[in-house]
Amino acid sequence: MAQLEVSDFAQAVIDRMAECKDPRFHQIMSSLVKHAHAFMREVDLTPQEWMAGIQFLTATGQKCDDKRQEFILLSDTLGLSMLVVALDQARGARALADQPGEKPTEATVQGPFFWAGAPQLELGADIGEGHPGEPTYYHGRVTDTFGQPIANCEVDVWSGDADGLYDMQKGDNMSLRAQFRTDQEGNYRFWSIKPTFYPVPGDGPVGTMLDRMGRHLNRPGHMHMMLQAPGHERLVTHIFVKDSPYLDSDAVFGVRNSLIVEFPKHAPGRAPDGRHMNKPYYTAEYDFRLVPSAA
Amino acid sequence: MAQLEVSDFAQAVIDRMAECKDPRFHQIMSSLVKHAHAFMREVDLTPQEWMAGIQFLTATGQKCDDKRQEFILLSDTLGLSMLVVALDQARGARALADQPGEKPTEATVQGPFFWAGAPQLELGADIGEGHPGEPTYYHGRVTDTFGQPIANCEVDVWSGDADGLYDMQKGDNMSLRAQFRTDQEGNYRFWSIKPTFYPVPGDGPVGTMLDRMGRHLNRPGHMHMMLQAPGHERLVTHIFVKDSPYLDSDAVFGVRNSLIVEFPKHAPGRAPDGRHMNKPYYTAEYDFRLVPSAA
Repeated sequence: MAQLEVSDFAQAVIDRMAECKDPRFHQIMSSLVKHAHAFMREVDLTPQEWMAGIQFLTATGQKCDDKRQEFILLSDTLGLSMLVVALDQARGARALADQPGEKPTEATVQGPFFWAGAPQLELGADIGEGHPGEPTYYHGRVTDTFGQPIANCEVDVWSGDADGLYDMQKGDNMSLRAQFRTDQEGNYRFWSIKPTFYPVPGDGPVGTMLDRMGRHLNRPGHMHMMLQAPGHERLVTHIFVKDSPYLDSDAVFGVRNSLIVEFPKHAPGRAPDGRHMNKPYYTAEYDFRLVPSAA
Repeated sequence: MAQLEVSDFAQAVIDRMAECKDPRFHQIMSSLVKHAHAFMREVDLTPQEWMAGIQFLTATGQKCDDKRQEFILLSDTLGLSMLVVALDQARGARALADQPGEKPTEATVQGPFFWAGAPQLELGADIGEGHPGEPTYYHGRVTDTFGQPIANCEVDVWSGDADGLYDMQKGDNMSLRAQFRTDQEGNYRFWSIKPTFYPVPGDGPVGTMLDRMGRHLNRPGHMHMMLQAPGHERLVTHIFVKDSPYLDSDAVFGVRNSLIVEFPKHAPGRAPDGRHMNKPYYTAEYDFRLVPSAA
């Protein structure tokens, strides 16, 4: 029988898939096996290091529950989630390459804190009321890549509070999140707080890894936004606060230049929607462009 | 700020380790990140496929408990465990390259069924008695790479039963395993059964993966052996049964040609150790060569 040497094992595993009936699965597993073996050969991984890896992966799986997804956090902090987002958007761009129209809004990571079923509120509602944080008026327009307004577009928004904590991390009641719908001209508007930077959860195996990598845990301040409308691809993205720390070292590599937004500060007085503010407030304006559905 | 494109993310993650204080950890994580990103770019991984991967890893972690290690099974079935064994042995061989002596015995995977603290029995004891399976007399000699006998070498042996099941899989009582010590001439001898081929556990995420890869679950029949003696590197290996099915397609890629052993069958009568056998039995002879400790 042919004897396998260190450089042969990967191909032997790939050859063992001769009966695989799913060409895409065959392709993915072949590439995965090739790169996993190349990694271990390249660093000449020792049995002790291999066992440390097994224990890390096991602890990461066992840290997951219905409120915590440590493998997504691992993927996020190794830049893999953002790579998948970027690959997806590049694929969409190639599909549209020969069509006119402007570039669609850039996507970024969804993160672990989306919570389906947020309250559906009227445009202009204040979801920051009663929460510590500086009041901010968010507004803008949703169009397609030709500038045509998209009416009735679902706009989900969510963020942490002034301490950087999301509702999911604090208890069971939803807060600082809502779903709005654009008006006939594609406009959206709502009040919330100005988001602050915050650390990703550092009390699990991924936190230990980041510490050992010499990395901080922080994400720059951002408002999550998810937009979906019939006939258009769903867009998952953030608005980043321009003066936030960590914009150049987001722990999950999610920052896109086009998503960094000025948050001008305003003296007390009449806000753009006519509301009278008796303390200073911020505004954030951002327009979104959605791409037509692939189907 | 510089905008990251799909080909930039891996280097951005590596650059984020500027403060890492452990050069070996830096090296391993850099290579891991580089290959993980290269894999995902190469297959243009979709968000749906990424999520399937997250769910697979999570389920694999959650399948692990004190008797089941699904991540080791994953590593085994992707040939990664055997690669680590082969890298380790190649490293040892390089260290000994300029020394005289014969090649040491080849190592293979430890597998998930080693159980520390097996009964310490006298040479010649029968650990197969009372278990279904064909009786086999195992014997041989343990020496160093110069042929000098190693006395008092601990020889742990373990195998499944005639149905391919290990004691750990059947309940809490140890069976078909023991620890022996070589005599003054380095000899070992014991009775057990002739091991049969058996499937690795297929009821978890890894079983589903193997099925989708179009692969069978089976390992050829083998007797696990672990040898350790002061002044020598511990050796973890198997003796494979020469006429076993699946020698050329071991589910964990553990077969080494030098570990395949004839199991000649003998008519009832007097066995090599003087025992009178009233039914047919097998013998398996194998000599082991251990390398001196690196220290």
